[in-house]
Amino acid sequence: MGEFDLIARYFKRPARRADVGIGDDCALLRPAPGMQLAISSDMLVQGRHFFSDVDPRTLGHKALAVNLSDLAACGAKPLAFTLALALPQADEAWLAGFSQGLLALADAHGCELIGGDTTAGPLNICITVFGEVPLHHGRSQALLRSGAQAGDDLYVSGTLGDARLALDVLLGRLKVPEPVLSAARLRLETPTPRVALGLALRGIASAAIDVSDGLLGDLGHILECSAVGATVEVDSTIGLIAAHAYYMSYRSTFFNDISIEQWRAWALAGGDDYELIFTAAPSQHEAVLAASQLSQTPVKRIGQINAKPGLQLLDSLSHSLPNRYASFDHFA
Amino acid sequence: MGEFDLIARYFKRPARRADVGIGDDCALLRPAPGMQLAISSDMLVQGRHFFSDVDPRTLGHKALAVNLSDLAACGAKPLAFTLALALPQADEAWLAGFSQGLLALADAHGCELIGGDTTAGPLNICITVFGEVPLHHGRSQALLRSGAQAGDDLYVSGTLGDARLALDVLLGRLKVPEPVLSAARLRLETPTPRVALGLALRGIASAAIDVSDGLLGDLGHILECSAVGATVEVDSTIGLIAAHAYYMSYRSTFFNDISIEQWRAWALAGGDDYELIFTAAPSQHEAVLAASQLSQTPVKRIGQINAKPGLQLLDSLSHSLPNRYASFDHFA
Repeated sequence: MGEFDLIARYFKRPARRADVGIGDDCALLRPAPGMQLAISSDMLVQGRHFFSDVDPRTLGHKALAVNLSDLAACGAKPLAFTLALALPQADEAWLAGFSQGLLALADAHGCELIGGDTTAGPLNICITVFGEVPLHHGRSQALLRSGAQAGDDLYVSGTLGDARLALDVLLGRLKVPEPVLSAARLRLETPTPRVALGLALRGIASAAIDVSDGLLGDLGHILECSAVGATVEVDSTIGLIAAHAYYMSYRSTFFNDISIEQWRAWALAGGDDYELIFTAAPSQHEAVLAASQLSQTPVKRIGQINAKPGLQLLDSLSHSLPNRYASFDHFA
Repeated sequence: MGEFDLIARYFKRPARRADVGIGDDCALLRPAPGMQLAISSDMLVQGRHFFSDVDPRTLGHKALAVNLSDLAACGAKPLAFTLALALPQADEAWLAGFSQGLLALADAHGCELIGGDTTAGPLNICITVFGEVPLHHGRSQALLRSGAQAGDDLYVSGTLGDARLALDVLLGRLKVPEPVLSAARLRLETPTPRVALGLALRGIASAAIDVSDGLLGDLGHILECSAVGATVEVDSTIGLIAAHAYYMSYRSTFFNDISIEQWRAWALAGGDDYELIFTAAPSQHEAVLAASQLSQTPVKRIGQINAKPGLQLLDSLSHSLPNRYASFDHFA
């Protein structure tokens, strides 16, 4: 199977949204009038972002999901994406699974594959995704990192920490009962991009970012871009770990206890969560709950934004905790 | 140096064309009214597309040049690009050279770096580039592969075959005098994207593609998409090898002769040329010459388009030649 057969067999479909899709030097896309284009790019490397034996179908899902998550964090509606793929060899079973997982998520979001590149090389998946955000009287409706205000409530969507818990178990760093791993592994391998929530939060949230490097690290970008500080109620985040409830139900038969410190670290600095952290004025609280319902996405208030810069961590008794939670950095 | 320092130091500059550039979840780009967006993506892998000891400055140039070449082939004006980079380590000297080569070419084309990704991993450079093409009464002015007509002249820009000649010498497959290698190596390492020519050919060329896999292979895409055939005057392409003239001037002192068959193979199937192949009606011949002058890009007629499918190769005596020239395929 040659390069062009591979593209035709697994990736090429008739262009719908694009004027020209796969098969020319460029794809041609006509943004709707009054729309801004939101663009994001993420690269996944074997051994860094996924294990070499991962199910190719879940890998296809995740490669697009992490990109859609960036659109979600901007409140952008997915339109299209390009896929550049370096493959050690053209393995048909792998390609079939990968393309199925990828295109199933793409279809679920009406996000069309419009072009890309295929080359031999160490397995590497680079997706660039395009979404649209309306302009309202010339002002962008995009959710940015820079809009948080002192007094805003701080929220996070969905679940936290499971991806890192699963990674630690898969790396042999600890053991948990099988159902606990299963719950956590779903979040590692098939994260849910919070696109519907991002769209529902336009005009409501004052700032947003998605959690890829860890809750506190990514919150730090909001604080820096908005020139504010925040208080985080640490123990309220532990309940957001999906595997935590499973673990608790097995606890009596499982003696190798996991410390609260470990649960905190997973929730605050686990990374790979692809949830949204966002801020909103207290007057928007009802609107936030309505956006959560509309998008069928759980949302939890975990703290607030302060005028004073810096991050304050409080335990369940409102005692201050030291911040020992380093976020992920590829080169630190 | 951490991941965010690396981006800030070598790649982040204030957004000019984009509403939001590097530093949020997405870049935000506002296409001009009445414009179509042209999008292309190319991935460069160490050991496949470049040697591990290549000058990082020329690598930065080439990584963007091959992407701009796709915009050129569509007649699109460069706007912006994203860069996803997997690096074995954060080597400051390498990053300084790479970013200088990359951003110098970007500046020369008014093409702004608006986002991307940085990760640890085997060296891999993935660029997605954005350009714009005007719509005229709702019709795209983009040059596509599908517009060639029987009777059209077939043209190629610039030089051919030098990149492959240089590659063969660098791989130790043959020896040539140093000035011959130098001339050829320039074309391998710092190809010139033919953006100005692509823009000048809007409304003149009937079809276009850029030469990345080899002249005949890429011409084959035009023939397939346009459902036509072509006749190529093979020996007229040998004169387009920049190193050929140098070689000829050294020939008397250099006895290990290179066969005409080898020169033909470099010109017809060398690859990595990043020149434009395009077709135009004979009535457009003067307009093609004017576009060549306007864009200061040499253009040569090398054959014509036929109604009958298939590729006919003719030597300088108009004798038919067999087509033994396989174009590059990463998985064939």
